[in-house]
Amino acid sequence: MSLTEHPHPASCPVSRSGFSRRSFLTRLGLVSATAAVGMTAACSDTGSGDTAGDATGDAADPVVAFDGVHQAGIETPVQANNSTVAFTLRDGVDATGIQRLLRIWTGDARRLCAGETALADLEPELSADPARLTITCGFGRGLFRAAGIDDRAPDWLEPLPAFTGDQLDARWGDRDLVLQICGDDRTTVSHALRVLVRGGADYARPSWTQEGFLDVPVGEDGTPGTSRNLFGFKDGTVNPRTDAEFAEQVWIGTEATDPAHVDGTCLIIRRVAFDMPLWEAADRPTREVAMGRTIVEGAPLTGTEEFDEPDLDAIGADGLPVIDQHSHIALATVHDGDERQRMLRRGYNYDLPVSASSADGLVDADLIALSDTGLIFTCFQPDPRNAFIPVQRRLSEGDRLNEWITHTGSAVFFVPPGTADGEYWGQALFA
Amino acid sequence: MSLTEHPHPASCPVSRSGFSRRSFLTRLGLVSATAAVGMTAACSDTGSGDTAGDATGDAADPVVAFDGVHQAGIETPVQANNSTVAFTLRDGVDATGIQRLLRIWTGDARRLCAGETALADLEPELSADPARLTITCGFGRGLFRAAGIDDRAPDWLEPLPAFTGDQLDARWGDRDLVLQICGDDRTTVSHALRVLVRGGADYARPSWTQEGFLDVPVGEDGTPGTSRNLFGFKDGTVNPRTDAEFAEQVWIGTEATDPAHVDGTCLIIRRVAFDMPLWEAADRPTREVAMGRTIVEGAPLTGTEEFDEPDLDAIGADGLPVIDQHSHIALATVHDGDERQRMLRRGYNYDLPVSASSADGLVDADLIALSDTGLIFTCFQPDPRNAFIPVQRRLSEGDRLNEWITHTGSAVFFVPPGTADGEYWGQALFA
Ligand code: HEM
Ligand code: HEM
Repeated sequence: MSLTEHPHPASCPVSRSGFSRRSFLTRLGLVSATAAVGMTAACSDTGSGDTAGDATGDAADPVVAFDGVHQAGIETPVQANNSTVAFTLRDGVDATGIQRLLRIWTGDARRLCAGETALADLEPELSADPARLTITCGFGRGLFRAAGIDDRAPDWLEPLPAFTGDQLDARWGDRDLVLQICGDDRTTVSHALRVLVRGGADYARPSWTQEGFLDVPVGEDGTPGTSRNLFGFKDGTVNPRTDAEFAEQVWIGTEATDPAHVDGTCLIIRRVAFDMPLWEAADRPTREVAMGRTIVEGAPLTGTEEFDEPDLDAIGADGLPVIDQHSHIALATVHDGDERQRMLRRGYNYDLPVSASSADGLVDADLIALSDTGLIFTCFQPDPRNAFIPVQRRLSEGDRLNEWITHTGSAVFFVPPGTADGEYWGQALFA
Repeated sequence: MSLTEHPHPASCPVSRSGFSRRSFLTRLGLVSATAAVGMTAACSDTGSGDTAGDATGDAADPVVAFDGVHQAGIETPVQANNSTVAFTLRDGVDATGIQRLLRIWTGDARRLCAGETALADLEPELSADPARLTITCGFGRGLFRAAGIDDRAPDWLEPLPAFTGDQLDARWGDRDLVLQICGDDRTTVSHALRVLVRGGADYARPSWTQEGFLDVPVGEDGTPGTSRNLFGFKDGTVNPRTDAEFAEQVWIGTEATDPAHVDGTCLIIRRVAFDMPLWEAADRPTREVAMGRTIVEGAPLTGTEEFDEPDLDAIGADGLPVIDQHSHIALATVHDGDERQRMLRRGYNYDLPVSASSADGLVDADLIALSDTGLIFTCFQPDPRNAFIPVQRRLSEGDRLNEWITHTGSAVFFVPPGTADGEYWGQALFA
């Protein structure tokens, strides 16, 4: 099913009963794949049911297909929770060890996402409800090196260049492997994370975890709406939606230097801290000018609806551009007609309880100043040299948002293509 | 509507269509109170609709009534997320300041829970969907003192006595005030927390935040099921459910020494750390013996169904008690026929990303050993001297679970009764 089709056509009795605004379509979870007699089943006569091998998933189905041409968790409409863990390979783990690790992980991830029991899982009850669980695996340069196949790594797989204003902490930096675990049920996500950490413990140790959340709105017609970041803006409006857009903006195509890269993608995770007290001191017009969009609708300042095309050349009565040239969207959008600058953004909000991470001296400190809030900016593209890097160069130099944000983490991964049943992640790279 | 009634009787077309297992009933959220045309409306001919003033709430309604005889967030079926923040009054804040603070907070909380805009809220879009938001306020002894009404504090409002094995950190200790913010949407919860922190900033500063989550299962018949803690057990089986049980086990009755305490309650928050690696080394029979219940069903070891009555006197073929006398339930249950030992437990799981709180030296440390996982054990009762204290004394000395758990935080609060429209929390105490 493509993202642009309605998961629940008007002929489905459920979508007519009026309770459309949000949550139930996307958060509807049943106890297991075999119990998936929910919305999909109720509406299966409409032809909207998704089938195994369709990684996009149906927002009403608690099981997102694990196997497919592409890994799940990318095209999948955003889930409410995301725990992303980066790993460091243990000393001496070589190609054989890495293949073992990937075989264990892929098998366990496949089972967990289907609502089945992972091997050696003593608490299967904690993930009995997959609630749209997806587990997406990425490789850092270090994995290719340790496996002795550095020549098979994509050229672009290296630390991103420095950008103006970066205040990067190695704590959120590049690592050998990453697992992005998303789902609508935090217990399931938390348990899946733990099962995979334990299952891979002989080969890799977790090095950082980034934990985020999103609201998951559902539009009047049952299609997914746009979630908001903690600045209050709809985030994800301009994003690929059709298969053709994904083919251009996300998946590595057949022109890849290595055939094992085809249908993979590049995952970038930037941790971006928000200065909330300063943001809250700005009034709404200031915020809207900085973004180039309205807060309520998410419309460009030259339009009224979220999906109106921004007119970057429009001049207001005061003789100035209606959309400021240093607004976030004016700088983030395609420049010089280079369509390769497009990407899929799939970030998550974070908001950590500060006291939990405080030293004793911070007891009773003023959390207003200390809020640990921001965005785990996550994007996918075929090659960052054509997308993230030129766009972030422009943003880092001129974006009005920079007054309130600081990039504190940066990591890049190659996401291998999807799997067939029984295959493991990246298997073709070891052939 | 009482908790024992089915929110969705069989005559509701939605409950017949098969997608009953979980989430959509409890997580169904609509954009605002006025847009509440959801499940409740669809099924309103069944007579199950809840009405303003009913703090229990209907699991299908995104708005839990704020005003009522008792505060919301106690009888309310558990929501998916909980951020609980404890505050310290700023130096010099007296009865007048405290009343101002409570007036601001109660007004903002009332608006937020209805999906309306709090005063001076610049991002109302972030909480437009209340998603069963509840905000519950509690007072520590320090508030009574600062207000010069120490004689009106309940006698029991003081730090809990020390228990065997406690390893308490003042970081999670007693404070002047607390706000328990629960809801099915983390963005809404996160934003509500921030609005209240900012709104009260002149009077009180946040001192700790405890952030937790639960799965929110819905039984086949539409009634709420029992969530699981991160040990994998159903947690909340033996709990008050009827109004009569709440009157006995939760609400302060008319025998209270101060009439302003009536319909209030005592809230205890214990932070309990789980040793996950050690737990994972225990097999399932060991776990079940330690708890006295089965993992899958949550049945007592003398029964087969979750709600079977445990038989603590039953002797097995081996001549030993079937439910070990040092199991958690054998020690936690009523002893000596003293029914006052019952309480409402409404705890939340926590599982924090360790790296986020790590010092630089911990980069790449082994998170398996470092997992920051546990239970924000939360209970309500009329008087802790009759309930939590005797029960925890038994548990701290003999509970088999102690091998895997450590109490690291302890706080006690008086929760004033619910409000009428326009009233503020605890208003009668200042009369
Ligand atoms: C913390 C920082 C950021 C925030 C709060 C933010 C937020 C937003 C928002 C609200 C929009 C407009 C709505 C939409 O199309 O989704 C947007 C658009 C966009 N952002 Fe960001 N963003 C951030 C960082 C970045 C970064 C680091 C990049 C990439 C380098 C980026 C790339 C884009 C792109 C490509 C668009 C679409 C532009 C267009 O064609 O209209 N953003 N962002
Ligand atoms: C971290 C520690 C704890 C865990 C993992 C835990 C878990 C459980 C579980 C799984 C049950 C059985 C199912 C149920 O009735 O909900 C239970 C029952 C109970 N627990 Fe705990 N609990 C913990 C701490 C406490 C504490 C600190 C208290 C109070 C001092 C307490 C009081 C109770 C009570 C009163 C029952 C019901 C006993 C009965 O009448 O059957 N628990 N707990």
